[in-house]
Amino acid sequence: MNNFSAIYTDQYQLAMAQIYFNKGHKDHQAIFDYYFRKLPFNGGYAVFAGLEDLLEILAEIRFKEDDIAFLKAQGFEDKFLKYLKEFRFTGKIYSASEGDIVFPTRPILQVEATIIEAQIIETILLNLLNFQTLIATKASRIRLVAGDAGLLDFGLRRAQATGGYFATRAAMIGGFDGTSNVAAAKKFDIKVSGTMAHSFIQSYDDELEAFRDFAKGRPQDCVLLVDTYNTLKSGVPNAIRVAKEMESRGDKLLAIRLDSGDLSYFAKESRKLLDDAGLDYVKIAASNQLDEYVIKSLLEQQAPIDIFGVGTNLVTGNPDGSLDGVYKLAYSNGQPRIKISESIFKVTLPHKKQVFRMKDDHGKCIGADAISLYHEKRVEEMYHPFEPYKSMNLEKYHQEAILNKVMENGENLINKRNLKEISEYSLTRLSELPIEYKRFNNPHIYKIGVSELLREEREKLIKSSKQKLK
Amino acid sequence: MNNFSAIYTDQYQLAMAQIYFNKGHKDHQAIFDYYFRKLPFNGGYAVFAGLEDLLEILAEIRFKEDDIAFLKAQGFEDKFLKYLKEFRFTGKIYSASEGDIVFPTRPILQVEATIIEAQIIETILLNLLNFQTLIATKASRIRLVAGDAGLLDFGLRRAQATGGYFATRAAMIGGFDGTSNVAAAKKFDIKVSGTMAHSFIQSYDDELEAFRDFAKGRPQDCVLLVDTYNTLKSGVPNAIRVAKEMESRGDKLLAIRLDSGDLSYFAKESRKLLDDAGLDYVKIAASNQLDEYVIKSLLEQQAPIDIFGVGTNLVTGNPDGSLDGVYKLAYSNGQPRIKISESIFKVTLPHKKQVFRMKDDHGKCIGADAISLYHEKRVEEMYHPFEPYKSMNLEKYHQEAILNKVMENGENLINKRNLKEISEYSLTRLSELPIEYKRFNNPHIYKIGVSELLREEREKLIKSSKQKLK
Repeated sequence: MNNFSAIYTDQYQLAMAQIYFNKGHKDHQAIFDYYFRKLPFNGGYAVFAGLEDLLEILAEIRFKEDDIAFLKAQGFEDKFLKYLKEFRFTGKIYSASEGDIVFPTRPILQVEATIIEAQIIETILLNLLNFQTLIATKASRIRLVAGDAGLLDFGLRRAQATGGYFATRAAMIGGFDGTSNVAAAKKFDIKVSGTMAHSFIQSYDDELEAFRDFAKGRPQDCVLLVDTYNTLKSGVPNAIRVAKEMESRGDKLLAIRLDSGDLSYFAKESRKLLDDAGLDYVKIAASNQLDEYVIKSLLEQQAPIDIFGVGTNLVTGNPDGSLDGVYKLAYSNGQPRIKISESIFKVTLPHKKQVFRMKDDHGKCIGADAISLYHEKRVEEMYHPFEPYKSMNLEKYHQEAILNKVMENGENLINKRNLKEISEYSLTRLSELPIEYKRFNNPHIYKIGVSELLREEREKLIKSSKQKLK
Repeated sequence: MNNFSAIYTDQYQLAMAQIYFNKGHKDHQAIFDYYFRKLPFNGGYAVFAGLEDLLEILAEIRFKEDDIAFLKAQGFEDKFLKYLKEFRFTGKIYSASEGDIVFPTRPILQVEATIIEAQIIETILLNLLNFQTLIATKASRIRLVAGDAGLLDFGLRRAQATGGYFATRAAMIGGFDGTSNVAAAKKFDIKVSGTMAHSFIQSYDDELEAFRDFAKGRPQDCVLLVDTYNTLKSGVPNAIRVAKEMESRGDKLLAIRLDSGDLSYFAKESRKLLDDAGLDYVKIAASNQLDEYVIKSLLEQQAPIDIFGVGTNLVTGNPDGSLDGVYKLAYSNGQPRIKISESIFKVTLPHKKQVFRMKDDHGKCIGADAISLYHEKRVEEMYHPFEPYKSMNLEKYHQEAILNKVMENGENLINKRNLKEISEYSLTRLSELPIEYKRFNNPHIYKIGVSELLREEREKLIKSSKQKLK
């Protein structure tokens, strides 16, 4: 996981770290919560992604010689730099499983480490988890509407430089089948897919000749792009001719691809032409500014499209572009900590915590997570985080602890899963979620509450903080 | 520029390349145009960025041993892989200067190379130029409204993984002053900046004590975050106390930072408190979901903010998230090429071309670029690309050729400039653009036209293409 130098961080992390170091605070134990406040895409859930990359990076994170030299030139002090030279992450991490369905305002991951270590890793943690969770969520929404259709990531040309590696990885977790991105396919063991570009056809004097050469060159996975000149008058008839020639050689044309015009109309007309020619096995692939809404609409119009290639809107998480994940101090130096805010909704939760997901006897989510202090084993009554008179009885539910220890002494405790396994786990978790949380318009809100003990602890801290301000 | 393996590309580039190779077409000369169709942010211009990174990568691009092994496992043929092993980019590139102001539907960059080389580099070219041009444009818009205020990039935690390096670089080209991203600062020689996090203050029992330690630890660039508990009752008064203590040691508090609440109100109230304490030199920095619209509004309200930290909206190019830059074949194997489309606006322009920018006697842009065949030295009359009876006489204008040769035989011909130089160049170019093109609402449209010769060449190709479809 190169290119993730330990200095791939915000400068203030190192500024604060030096002060903790000089003050003798560096070994104070701290706990930070990672969570987000707002679900992306106005949706009802998110898919948590990026964890394995994070753990891999934390296990290896080091300041290299030239990083140290750069920091020295920035005015950092020698004895602190000597510490950074030996720096490694030795903390614990508790986390939801990668691929799990997650919701706002409850911890998805907790870091328990010395304050200096916890601070130094903040930026890379946010960078990895925010982005991949955003993209996995987008991919999951696309998978929801696409049913069994093939889903291919075509986004590399619109990704943020090398960010494209992680866009592709997250897309797979959310339920995509393959990618055009060769380097990401190699790195993460993903099925690589591709078709042909308009330029290939243009580079020939004749579309038919271009198709023929391509079919001979890639008999095993030939997809012909049919819209360079005229889809129904030229592209599809030429593709049919080539498909017949392939049959005579014992090969089979895999698909045609539509990349412009009204995809529903062209898919239907192309399907007719293909079927009339006895080519009902030839699939139809479509691309061009697709997202979950366009794909949903196409399928509602019964457009006979078998494979969707999704690029820009997938890898940029359009229209949101970011997940607002934050990293908040909950405990340090023997004391629970909160951040007071102008907005009550931004007041944080103190202490090491656990999150319980409530399930019925059939293993279905009932639509509530309860946050407790870490040592609590169950939550019998959960309280609205900000409205003291609202509560909900949870006695009858199965309670699943969401946060599990995934790193200790800086060592990764989880068994590495391949992306297929993470994706299947994600689909299973999503199947436990009632459909009301999955719809695109005004989805049902997944409830959150706090245990009585946690609520009391927070009240105490708010009071003493107000006391000080008087 | 590691991590940019030659396989950081779409699979179809290699699929097509193998066919060109086998067909004996690999050395056919080709010309591709890079351009975009739609200006980002509904704006009137874009800032071209990413060129130096692209040239650096193209000069070094190679397929490594393990890339070749991966491709072999994907079914690519040995003799083609042998070619890839020796692959290097040996073509020419003509380009606008990095930092120049650019507009839609005219070439910003042209690649002249063998078709196989031109195809293999397509994806990385689009990936680098689309993203950096998007972000440099966003940064430029923010600089336009921010006047002389300091602008800092705080976006790393919301960037696409390692894409954050390039987000930061592009932000500097668009006119930012510094970044919190330490690794990008090191890589691109940028001023690194940072303040403190809420967690630092929360980790102390007392805000004042936290401020004191920070001020002692960073006397040279101390910025105190004043909104952890209560901005006006606690944060600013404590900052004032610490500023006075710093004065007694001969140090100066650089700034306070506001990160929540109504920034206009808090900036004004904080300014009063600071001034009343004789601390008129202490600056006010603000952050929290800023973009060009919020900053414009804050300054219109005369909020006394000296430094803006911009994160998410900068590095994600919110709300657009991507630039729709494309790469279209204009010439191959001795023939000019076009792509016909259902939409007349998507028909491409054939041949090697030049773009002339029209200027008046004062060096001001008059709002028109003309595209000609490459050998034309001037364009006396430019024609509307799609409406045959519209034309504009250009005789009286100075005509500046925008595309210059920047790479030959795969060698970078341009003198490396630092980001400050590119950014200053960009500001100069922007100053040549009349204000009507810079406003945010319905900006004036920068005209485009084609020379008579180019128009005729395109007409011929459209006709012969229609002929074939009959």
